[in-house]
Amino acid sequence: MTKRTEISELGEFGLIQRLSQGNTQHSDTIKSIGDDCAVIDTKLLKTLVTTDFLVEDIHFDLSYTPLKHLGYKAVVVNVSDIYAMNGTPKHITVSIAVSNRFSVEALEEIYAGIYLACENYGIDVIGGDTTSSPKGLIISITAIGEAAEDKIVYRNQAKEGDLICVTGNLGAAYLGLQILIREKQVYLEDPYMKPEITEENSYLIERILKPEAKKKIIEYLKTENILPHAMIDISDGLSSELMHICSQSKVGCLIEEKEIPIDQTAYDQAMKFNLDPTVCALSGGEDYELLFTIDPKEREKIIQNEGISIIGVITKPEDGLKLESRGGNTFDLKAQGWVSF
Amino acid sequence: MTKRTEISELGEFGLIQRLSQGNTQHSDTIKSIGDDCAVIDTKLLKTLVTTDFLVEDIHFDLSYTPLKHLGYKAVVVNVSDIYAMNGTPKHITVSIAVSNRFSVEALEEIYAGIYLACENYGIDVIGGDTTSSPKGLIISITAIGEAAEDKIVYRNQAKEGDLICVTGNLGAAYLGLQILIREKQVYLEDPYMKPEITEENSYLIERILKPEAKKKIIEYLKTENILPHAMIDISDGLSSELMHICSQSKVGCLIEEKEIPIDQTAYDQAMKFNLDPTVCALSGGEDYELLFTIDPKEREKIIQNEGISIIGVITKPEDGLKLESRGGNTFDLKAQGWVSF
Repeated sequence: MTKRTEISELGEFGLIQRLSQGNTQHSDTIKSIGDDCAVIDTKLLKTLVTTDFLVEDIHFDLSYTPLKHLGYKAVVVNVSDIYAMNGTPKHITVSIAVSNRFSVEALEEIYAGIYLACENYGIDVIGGDTTSSPKGLIISITAIGEAAEDKIVYRNQAKEGDLICVTGNLGAAYLGLQILIREKQVYLEDPYMKPEITEENSYLIERILKPEAKKKIIEYLKTENILPHAMIDISDGLSSELMHICSQSKVGCLIEEKEIPIDQTAYDQAMKFNLDPTVCALSGGEDYELLFTIDPKEREKIIQNEGISIIGVITKPEDGLKLESRGGNTFDLKAQGWVSF
Repeated sequence: MTKRTEISELGEFGLIQRLSQGNTQHSDTIKSIGDDCAVIDTKLLKTLVTTDFLVEDIHFDLSYTPLKHLGYKAVVVNVSDIYAMNGTPKHITVSIAVSNRFSVEALEEIYAGIYLACENYGIDVIGGDTTSSPKGLIISITAIGEAAEDKIVYRNQAKEGDLICVTGNLGAAYLGLQILIREKQVYLEDPYMKPEITEENSYLIERILKPEAKKKIIEYLKTENILPHAMIDISDGLSSELMHICSQSKVGCLIEEKEIPIDQTAYDQAMKFNLDPTVCALSGGEDYELLFTIDPKEREKIIQNEGISIIGVITKPEDGLKLESRGGNTFDLKAQGWVSF
């Protein structure tokens, strides 16, 4: 039988002590959990800061989200933002509000995922806050990273003629989510129905439940001495992120539909759902791939990395944001990112 | 008539644009809101990081908390943690989750309080996240500050013989809260009853609804070249904070009841409620005063500042944590800090 310890048995300090096992990996973590603040030695580098909220029933549904995966993902979405600046994530604070529906063991599952992600990405948990909530589970993580000033990549420096690159593949997370929503519906209608989660679609489900940030790509760019002009991570869908880069850089773009990387499993699943795979890639979101623009002289280095696709080119601002379809027609790109409200 | 704009009319990006007016005051804020991360130049100083959750119906009750005060307080509680390390607060990220019960104007009220606190304490808002919540209002703020390494004051360096100092006065916030709870009860029982919030108790209510952090004390210590050995801010009550310092520093303490600073209004109000004013000071919490220990040779400088009281002395660890009462008896100090769960 699984043990259930009530949070009230431990109290706030007991809980913090039990959950914060301490995982200091960096010598620049001067002080971690246990004082009014954590202390970091950033030396001569610049400090990068990003924060994200994960709210139950808004950002995740616990009926199909394992708690360990949730903790893992909560770290990854923040780490991804640090990579999107071409930085190195080093530290996070973790704040969690939970109702008494959750046991201490449930919280430990979330933290197991958090610490696993921290191990994989080389991050120290340096602080946080744990409190009760009248309803549901809310996780707020702030990630702190570092970068040399001349290596930081913003969204606003894309140049006309730049090649537009994207890592990995797009749309898979969205299709994974559609499978989970369908299976939940099936389960609600008939709890004895066997869920249709097969070996083929397990990849799609992993993409939504346990995404990874693109650490290796950032390392590759560094090794190859490629500094993107503009970069962003794809959390809301390709269209929405292209719009951010183009509007902040005051440029246009032309994307070739046939170059947008879509995994075969995702393509097949889209067909089964009667969805257009390209629309899933453009508007699906939650892929946590990187979108960046580079000087065309870097083309040779980029095409050697199988994890990067060149999907288009940066154009003049007056050309707008365009997609050239497989059939050779040109359409306006529309952002249909994820709407929280 | 007050205008009510639905959050859904603006959407997430529109909302962020409307709320993030931008308030960059520091040249070290290289990049604020509008990219994947904010970028800070910490130069040769160390970075201090702290975070706090404020959850509706756990940490505040909107039936008697004005939204602007709430925003103000959410900043102050974090700033107070930076001062408690003897640091200078410089930057915050602000994440807010709200249900659709809140209008855009309500969110603007919260932000008005946030920006007012930022103005008063010299802080730049550099990022955040705004999302919907299925129920209630949740604010998560992370504050980032800086300090020279040799000026940072931890909790674990109190020495035997140190004088124990406390700023301002204690117990007032707790008594203010008791008044608000009583008035809410009166209102719920009879909405036509006039609330008994008088000029005398308005100070107590201000202490709970709109606390201030001890910026001037930190400046005084710096001017007078006093470096405390240990310091903490009093958020959970004096007893609880003394326990943190003593257990982390492996020392004992002896507090004199008659030296604990209690405002006359707080004293009178405690009497009206049949409460012991000393117990309110020891266990009340939410005062956001500073508790610190100093070398006895600094006594002359400390007593010149009316905002600081010397309330006792650090003793040997085997002496334990003691309170000497007005009557000359000695009692064990017990922590009865605020219990969230």
